[in-house]
Amino acid sequence: MALTILKGTIVSAPAPGRLEVTEGGFLAAEEGRVSGVFPVLPERYAGAAVEDWGDALILQAPMDLHLHAPQYPMRGCGMDLPLLDWLNAYAFPTEARFSDPDYARELYRALARELIESGTTRVCMFSSLHREATLILMEELERAGVTGFVGKVNMDRNGGKNLQETTEESRRETLLWLEACQDFQHIRPILTPRFIPSCTDELMDFLGQLAAERSLPVQSHLSENTGEIQWVKELHPDCSQYWECYAKYGLWNRRTVMAHCVWSDERERRAMAEAGVLAVHCPDSNQNLCSGTAPVKTMLREGVRVALGSDIAGGDRLNMLDVAASAIRASKARRILDNWETEFLTVAEAWYLAVSAGASFFGARPGFAPGEPLHALVLSDSGLPRPARPMTPAERLERCLYHRQRDAVQAVWSEGRRVFSRTM
Amino acid sequence: MALTILKGTIVSAPAPGRLEVTEGGFLAAEEGRVSGVFPVLPERYAGAAVEDWGDALILQAPMDLHLHAPQYPMRGCGMDLPLLDWLNAYAFPTEARFSDPDYARELYRALARELIESGTTRVCMFSSLHREATLILMEELERAGVTGFVGKVNMDRNGGKNLQETTEESRRETLLWLEACQDFQHIRPILTPRFIPSCTDELMDFLGQLAAERSLPVQSHLSENTGEIQWVKELHPDCSQYWECYAKYGLWNRRTVMAHCVWSDERERRAMAEAGVLAVHCPDSNQNLCSGTAPVKTMLREGVRVALGSDIAGGDRLNMLDVAASAIRASKARRILDNWETEFLTVAEAWYLAVSAGASFFGARPGFAPGEPLHALVLSDSGLPRPARPMTPAERLERCLYHRQRDAVQAVWSEGRRVFSRTM
Repeated sequence: MALTILKGTIVSAPAPGRLEVTEGGFLAAEEGRVSGVFPVLPERYAGAAVEDWGDALILQAPMDLHLHAPQYPMRGCGMDLPLLDWLNAYAFPTEARFSDPDYARELYRALARELIESGTTRVCMFSSLHREATLILMEELERAGVTGFVGKVNMDRNGGKNLQETTEESRRETLLWLEACQDFQHIRPILTPRFIPSCTDELMDFLGQLAAERSLPVQSHLSENTGEIQWVKELHPDCSQYWECYAKYGLWNRRTVMAHCVWSDERERRAMAEAGVLAVHCPDSNQNLCSGTAPVKTMLREGVRVALGSDIAGGDRLNMLDVAASAIRASKARRILDNWETEFLTVAEAWYLAVSAGASFFGARPGFAPGEPLHALVLSDSGLPRPARPMTPAERLERCLYHRQRDAVQAVWSEGRRVFSRTM
Repeated sequence: MALTILKGTIVSAPAPGRLEVTEGGFLAAEEGRVSGVFPVLPERYAGAAVEDWGDALILQAPMDLHLHAPQYPMRGCGMDLPLLDWLNAYAFPTEARFSDPDYARELYRALARELIESGTTRVCMFSSLHREATLILMEELERAGVTGFVGKVNMDRNGGKNLQETTEESRRETLLWLEACQDFQHIRPILTPRFIPSCTDELMDFLGQLAAERSLPVQSHLSENTGEIQWVKELHPDCSQYWECYAKYGLWNRRTVMAHCVWSDERERRAMAEAGVLAVHCPDSNQNLCSGTAPVKTMLREGVRVALGSDIAGGDRLNMLDVAASAIRASKARRILDNWETEFLTVAEAWYLAVSAGASFFGARPGFAPGEPLHALVLSDSGLPRPARPMTPAERLERCLYHRQRDAVQAVWSEGRRVFSRTM
């Protein structure tokens, strides 16, 4: 029996705002699935090999529920531009480069490696509209050990130069792409209408039927900025709110991921909570593009499912430890915006959003739940300055989030398999 | 004659919002002082050794106008707490540890090294109230090549446990400290009343006289948060605004540095502009501690001198490239707060604030002005993903700010002297 036993300071986030800490504990997995976290090694593992990480932190591996793979090379570019200018000057031309399979291979390999080295093992990701590059992306992710969902983008209107399909092409390429996806084990397809302005009604109708027939999940954007919302209203005068444009095509349910939701009002949030739609908060992107500041605490209180996304390259940070810290900062900006009448996200809450909140979308439970595939990372803070007094594990986690060091991740496990070691 | 000639992509910020770019240019310094930036090597340097950095960026070294050295070990700690709780639970106990000279030596050596490795060559810095540790800090900075101002903190009321002086101690220790400061060449003393609530009127009076007699600069905090402002009002009912408490002791002039100024209203801002007081914007700290969002664009428009500070450990980022990016983000938060009616800082504006805006406080001119001591760094972006198309130097600077990599700084010069090489 394949057995993994890791010893260290184990910190998991089984519930919002609650950290479970086991110092000098043992995290065990059998055949790649967590069997438990134990303060003392259970009798049945006596004599088994234990990987001792000293007092390093052993954490759940984070997940990134929204990012644009082909925008990887343009992180931190054009951030002085408004959204639509930024799309036209940077995002669309960069995505168009991925018609070149060699460029795609090089960049996607680097992206997959950077994801794993920062401990991100589960993603829900946009590719470009290119079928070949999308399959290359899936190959590179699977090879590196990143698991989850990737979508070939559908966009049959309002695209960029060299970055648009006809409706017919979009249909055909999507079907061909889905066929080829059967080759992958840990990376699965997700339908990906870019956003309402990019897809004709005919294409949306097709995607809705496809989702139903093949039981496919779907990802898109929702209520990111006010200009976009106005545009959607004009395109769908029959829908009183943005979300209804997805709902009317059957793309609004528990297998739906919607990025941003910055401007979703009470009614739209209720529609999310009732349908079980997963909202993805992308704090860096919303700030960089001046979209607004999502009311995350309010969404959580109202029962909306919320997870985190890096949203590169609207977001500039790929590492989810950074993104968790950004979520805290954004919630403080929101508190200031709300005249100090709302609360901010605590470290324990933000970390839950990064590592546990999206678990159900991958069919898993939060925390290090027994029976779930092992997704874990070992984080060292020994390179940080010596503190004035001993710190608790929760304090150490906080310091690592704010003060993330590039080489802090020592080892990563994904779907039960070790996929990275610093010393490899 | 000692001659330094650096070849590369030279980018300087001689004026707010304006980058001066010389690709394949030469930055020359004679006897440690800039002689100029040249697109072609001048005749008089023919045959001289040229250090060729390829197409790496050669930038002005940034300056950090506000940080608390003894809070270095607690960056990213206690960020879920409100200001006063944070001071009592983290900041004061950590500062109290610096009564131990060995701890001070270890931590200050690490701080000085980290400053230089991130290219920060000029600082205006708070120490703790400990005379010995303050001198150790000055030694370590000078040894590492960090120049500028350091202040022994004065605090004779409302301090923490083991972190308060009597008025008499404060006076005596300040005078002894000033005497010992004569040993330093590039690090000079600055008077440092912690903030109005920490200093009795008697102590403020003493500091005001000392500043006048010895022509010393002064640094403190101003209008950081609303609770503090209220407290100051109660302590000085004769002053209608916070700044007047400094002004009445003669501590309000061109040699005054005031951190934060988040809540300074039009009248207080006018008092700053008229007196030539230097306001230090600390975006990370203001966000982390939920103090508020300073109206930096407004201050600049009104003619207030504004520079940037990391304000560790209210701020969690020491690297001024990060802080410049944070200033941009904060200005976007401010834009959102102002209902999109104010502008945000552009990359060129934020970079000016980081490298040039504080120059006058160190008696220097902005940009790579001829005759000024060379403060420069070489920044490589070759480790970043290959872009979809060639980038301009300004775009590369932007990407480096947002997407700072730990090992990107290749070499640093401070006061004309090379103080760091990646390959050293």
